[in-house]
Amino acid sequence: MHGRRVGLGPGAEFRRIESLLAAAGGTAGPEVLVGPGDDAAVVALGEAERLVLSCDLSIEDVHFRREWLSWESIGWRAAASALSDLAAMGARPIGALLALALAPELDASVADAIARGVGGCLARFDAPVLGGDLSRSPGPAILDVIVAGATRRPLTRSGARAGDEIWVTGELGGAAAAAAAFGAGLEPEPGARHAFERPVPRLPEIAWLIERAGITAAIDLSDGLSGDAGHVARASGVRLGIDLDAVPLHPVLDAWRDRAAALRLAASGGEDYELLLVAEPGSVDGLGRAFADEFDISLTRIGDVTEGEGVEWRDAEGRPVPAPAGGWDHFSPGGGAP
Amino acid sequence: MHGRRVGLGPGAEFRRIESLLAAAGGTAGPEVLVGPGDDAAVVALGEAERLVLSCDLSIEDVHFRREWLSWESIGWRAAASALSDLAAMGARPIGALLALALAPELDASVADAIARGVGGCLARFDAPVLGGDLSRSPGPAILDVIVAGATRRPLTRSGARAGDEIWVTGELGGAAAAAAAFGAGLEPEPGARHAFERPVPRLPEIAWLIERAGITAAIDLSDGLSGDAGHVARASGVRLGIDLDAVPLHPVLDAWRDRAAALRLAASGGEDYELLLVAEPGSVDGLGRAFADEFDISLTRIGDVTEGEGVEWRDAEGRPVPAPAGGWDHFSPGGGAP
Repeated sequence: MHGRRVGLGPGAEFRRIESLLAAAGGTAGPEVLVGPGDDAAVVALGEAERLVLSCDLSIEDVHFRREWLSWESIGWRAAASALSDLAAMGARPIGALLALALAPELDASVADAIARGVGGCLARFDAPVLGGDLSRSPGPAILDVIVAGATRRPLTRSGARAGDEIWVTGELGGAAAAAAAFGAGLEPEPGARHAFERPVPRLPEIAWLIERAGITAAIDLSDGLSGDAGHVARASGVRLGIDLDAVPLHPVLDAWRDRAAALRLAASGGEDYELLLVAEPGSVDGLGRAFADEFDISLTRIGDVTEGEGVEWRDAEGRPVPAPAGGWDHFSPGGGAP
Repeated sequence: MHGRRVGLGPGAEFRRIESLLAAAGGTAGPEVLVGPGDDAAVVALGEAERLVLSCDLSIEDVHFRREWLSWESIGWRAAASALSDLAAMGARPIGALLALALAPELDASVADAIARGVGGCLARFDAPVLGGDLSRSPGPAILDVIVAGATRRPLTRSGARAGDEIWVTGELGGAAAAAAAFGAGLEPEPGARHAFERPVPRLPEIAWLIERAGITAAIDLSDGLSGDAGHVARASGVRLGIDLDAVPLHPVLDAWRDRAAALRLAASGGEDYELLLVAEPGSVDGLGRAFADEFDISLTRIGDVTEGEGVEWRDAEGRPVPAPAGGWDHFSPGGGAP
């Protein structure tokens, strides 16, 4: 965070940064001791809290295309993706930095729109913008959203134990359906577009569940259930058994005539930013209704943890089926996922 | 920090990230509770310490050119620039994230070289790599180094008071001399090149001074003394008077026949990453010898703080002279600074 780039510099640059920070919204908070405008931001953590840090780089034509989304949605998605990592760690957000580089030929309003999207998503979770970095880009629009969170007891990917249950928040595949449509040159259905451009990190949901259930491991579904379940299996040294038919489908996919194709897309497509949770047996039972009442999203048991390794996919009769293909590897320019 | 991008993902991506982390060196430390490979990193702060956060975006053809520097030096500079912000806040580093995007046609060894440079600079200050993000770039190499630090009493730009003294660590203008040479299509003198490609953040120096002197404000000289002194004046609501002749010259500039031109370059050129310090009157006197013995760099008084605003430049006789032009605005592709 250089003076010239984020600090209270003189002239045009100063005004650009002021405009950007204004667009991003809140930069103050009870824990913010030094906000934007100094060499670095300073934040207080609570008693016995640990710092949780993550960043999410979004690059034009790798992670998004400007033809597909508004600049504000591009900013929102980048912030949601970073905040989702805090949710997966069971952390509360304490603030974020925004590093942004844009080609000089772009109108100054583009930076403001991106900041508005980032700031809008952060504000939903009372996370202030602490500072950042503003630069010129030789071409692609570049965003890096860095989030800081705090927790007394971090949730990791490595806590799953044989006998635990596997749960998932919300419904899957909406973002993948949109990405598939974009990739084919089509306009996604409105529900799918909304899932793709305005994902919501499950921060209050995980806080609520941690208080009530024995959550042993968590990961956010950024790569897709298939890939992310594999991460948990590897990190925990266990085997995850998942019932493909139990995977909760986004309404857009639920309406597909080819249910098998819909399930495979939901289980392999990424960027939904729902949470995969591993919980002690029985500890989530009976919480679903209260969870749905509180957050208006579902909580679905999709399998269980056994000794072994890897992910085993099963059909409705419990017979092994091939893993849903591929997962989500962002789109290739000219291509499309999945 | 997505599974696919930094986590323990399968296959080629996993090996790329393992290779990158190995190249970056240490990822463990007594305060690191969760290092690379989970959704986010988790770090403990000390008792009563505040979190200090900064990021530094480096983009090819905006902040560096691959023809000028080795990839390792590009990584070092990015890390040094970010760590220098922690020094300016009087913070100790506790770790860093590295977000890196490279065009697919670049050899995998390029990512390793950048990580080696970033990690080498971090290791010098015992700061582990906590995680990051690895992505494809559609063109330019992109690095974002995010540093986390901790301090009980942050130093800001806003603490300077009338009557305080202005000091500067080390010697100025080496990086600017290199940038000027690069911009003119020339190979810089070795000393200037070294200053440009291997700047050293003044972390132990500021810790040493905070213990012994009454430091009231600090900023790192990333934009250049002229610009950065202006930041302190504005943030503190005071006037900084600087004796141009007192500005300590890098040996390369000290050898210039045109001393006036050398002084102006040293006072306006950026990226030296020395510190401008404001100190209570007399509190630094007598520390210079011990400081030089300890760190092998100089500590020079260059002026004083009065009531008023802005920066006043003076010649050896105390007469006002024009502010050294421009400061450092990174180089323009095809151009050159300053």
